[in-house]
Amino acid sequence: MKSEFAFIEQIKKRAATRRAADLRLGIGDDAAILRQREGRETLVTVDLLVEDVDFKLDYAIPHWLGHKALAVSLSDIAAMGGSPKFSLLTLAIPKQSPISNLQSENFWEAFFEGYFALASEHGIVLVGGDISSTLGGLALDSMVIGHCAAGKAVRRSGARVGDGVYVTGALGASASGLRLLLDGARVNEAEASPAQSAIRAHLRSAPRVEFGRLAGESGLAHSMIDVSDGLAQDLLHICEESQVAAILDFDAVPIAEAVKLVTADADAAFSLAVGGGEDFELLLTADRGNEQALFDLASRCELPFARIGTITARDGAHPVRVSHGGDAKPLSIRGFDHFDV
Amino acid sequence: MKSEFAFIEQIKKRAATRRAADLRLGIGDDAAILRQREGRETLVTVDLLVEDVDFKLDYAIPHWLGHKALAVSLSDIAAMGGSPKFSLLTLAIPKQSPISNLQSENFWEAFFEGYFALASEHGIVLVGGDISSTLGGLALDSMVIGHCAAGKAVRRSGARVGDGVYVTGALGASASGLRLLLDGARVNEAEASPAQSAIRAHLRSAPRVEFGRLAGESGLAHSMIDVSDGLAQDLLHICEESQVAAILDFDAVPIAEAVKLVTADADAAFSLAVGGGEDFELLLTADRGNEQALFDLASRCELPFARIGTITARDGAHPVRVSHGGDAKPLSIRGFDHFDV
Repeated sequence: MKSEFAFIEQIKKRAATRRAADLRLGIGDDAAILRQREGRETLVTVDLLVEDVDFKLDYAIPHWLGHKALAVSLSDIAAMGGSPKFSLLTLAIPKQSPISNLQSENFWEAFFEGYFALASEHGIVLVGGDISSTLGGLALDSMVIGHCAAGKAVRRSGARVGDGVYVTGALGASASGLRLLLDGARVNEAEASPAQSAIRAHLRSAPRVEFGRLAGESGLAHSMIDVSDGLAQDLLHICEESQVAAILDFDAVPIAEAVKLVTADADAAFSLAVGGGEDFELLLTADRGNEQALFDLASRCELPFARIGTITARDGAHPVRVSHGGDAKPLSIRGFDHFDV
Repeated sequence: MKSEFAFIEQIKKRAATRRAADLRLGIGDDAAILRQREGRETLVTVDLLVEDVDFKLDYAIPHWLGHKALAVSLSDIAAMGGSPKFSLLTLAIPKQSPISNLQSENFWEAFFEGYFALASEHGIVLVGGDISSTLGGLALDSMVIGHCAAGKAVRRSGARVGDGVYVTGALGASASGLRLLLDGARVNEAEASPAQSAIRAHLRSAPRVEFGRLAGESGLAHSMIDVSDGLAQDLLHICEESQVAAILDFDAVPIAEAVKLVTADADAAFSLAVGGGEDFELLLTADRGNEQALFDLASRCELPFARIGTITARDGAHPVRVSHGGDAKPLSIRGFDHFDV
């Protein structure tokens, strides 16, 4: 039986193949050591993924799960307008499941292949983590550390009245993919179908790392967040932190093609797109005068980009409303709550 | 039912009562923002605690569990000779246990009372985290970020032949406390007995934050590690990373009074002290010429301190040996392995 130390040794070896400018010491001591620089700020985020709550091993593909574990945290650094640089990963590994056998390494080989492939794509170095067994399901806690020039981080609190509201990509693909998986569809990596791309959007989202970094460096975005809880909820976060309101344009919200696979109704499609979550697109607000520059930036990143609404003053009405044929109605769709009953 | 967002809001409020020099933005955005400074290095560590593997709710006292969740990671920063400054905490909370009811807040009130009391003692600000439900047991992933002057971090790899081997405090109290708990003893905070202090050593260890920082700043320690896996295992880590060997002096290893509660045999007591783990004392090596300065430093921190052995050259024999009555025998006691069968 391979020991915990041997398992860690193997991850350490894989992580050590990468060097990074500000890395002084990676995995293998009591803490990692990272160089600081004057005029720069550290960004740090953590995301927890729990089996049967945030993913199911039933339909997860190990190398996609490794990818997703890193992707969710990269997305947070992108949403701050920063550059992700380092990661840490904590694993609670079930003793009582086929994947807990660390000697039969197929699962973990594939998992780390997915994790390190995405890390490599964005120049991320794994610098630490921890491992424990668990009597429950697999849990992955993913931390990413990045940086930005001092004062350049894009917060949720920076939206201003009159700002345009923008979003990268299209919404609802992840929620549609999840619906298909729950209905019994499964991954087929060889098949290029709308259903498979919806499933891929859910299980293997692509974080908008480059767009986020450029939006931050350029200073074009006043506020930004990644669409993880769902557009409705995430726009509400921006409105609350910025003390503003927003009006979404029903017809302008870009709905992913995949949504058609689960509903033909326009209202239901809209609900899925704004309520679904886990699209990991970037939602931002910016001065309308900078709109063209933002469209150019998105095009440089080969991302669809759309203006979907306007930031307005708070007026006692629901902070997020949606205009559809002249009417502006409260957008009451709630995001995902882990303890909802 | 209190929602996840409301639960987080409450932790956020509590965390926001503290300010810190280099904190630009704490909980509440996609990532925390921390200021960097030239000539300084960031230290980052993470520790995972899983119910029924690393602790049992059966005998854990909620505010001590909150204390311990932070203490284990503070200890890692201390072991690098750094100053801990910021923390993040991830919680996987069972849906199916009494403590999962976030509305009945007794458990979490107490947990965070313990967490924030220790944070406050050392000036730590909680700047982020995540929360998920789980079908398994409670899991706590604790991250601490600290810093030190560039080049001052004390690594495991710095031990030199001829160094003295030193340890703070006494060993085996935590292992003895665990033994007592497994035998049915329970916490009684009102009672001041040797048994209760052993239990306290296990459930509510005091990380050696000040000693660690001073050992780093003073440049007195060549190598350092915290005693988490057990002295035998942790000294082996130093020997392996430093490419040296060590001889422990059987009679010099400080054995905690509490060990007498579980064994009267000197050899068994020694085994418990060096194999037990989770003492969270600091184990270091240093030039013998600096010994008095180290003793002074320990005395300033009101900590017992002892020289327990010597670093020697590798010679093909077991890297950690123990001398007892002239003989030097391999110290083969293994530390804790999460996947041991």
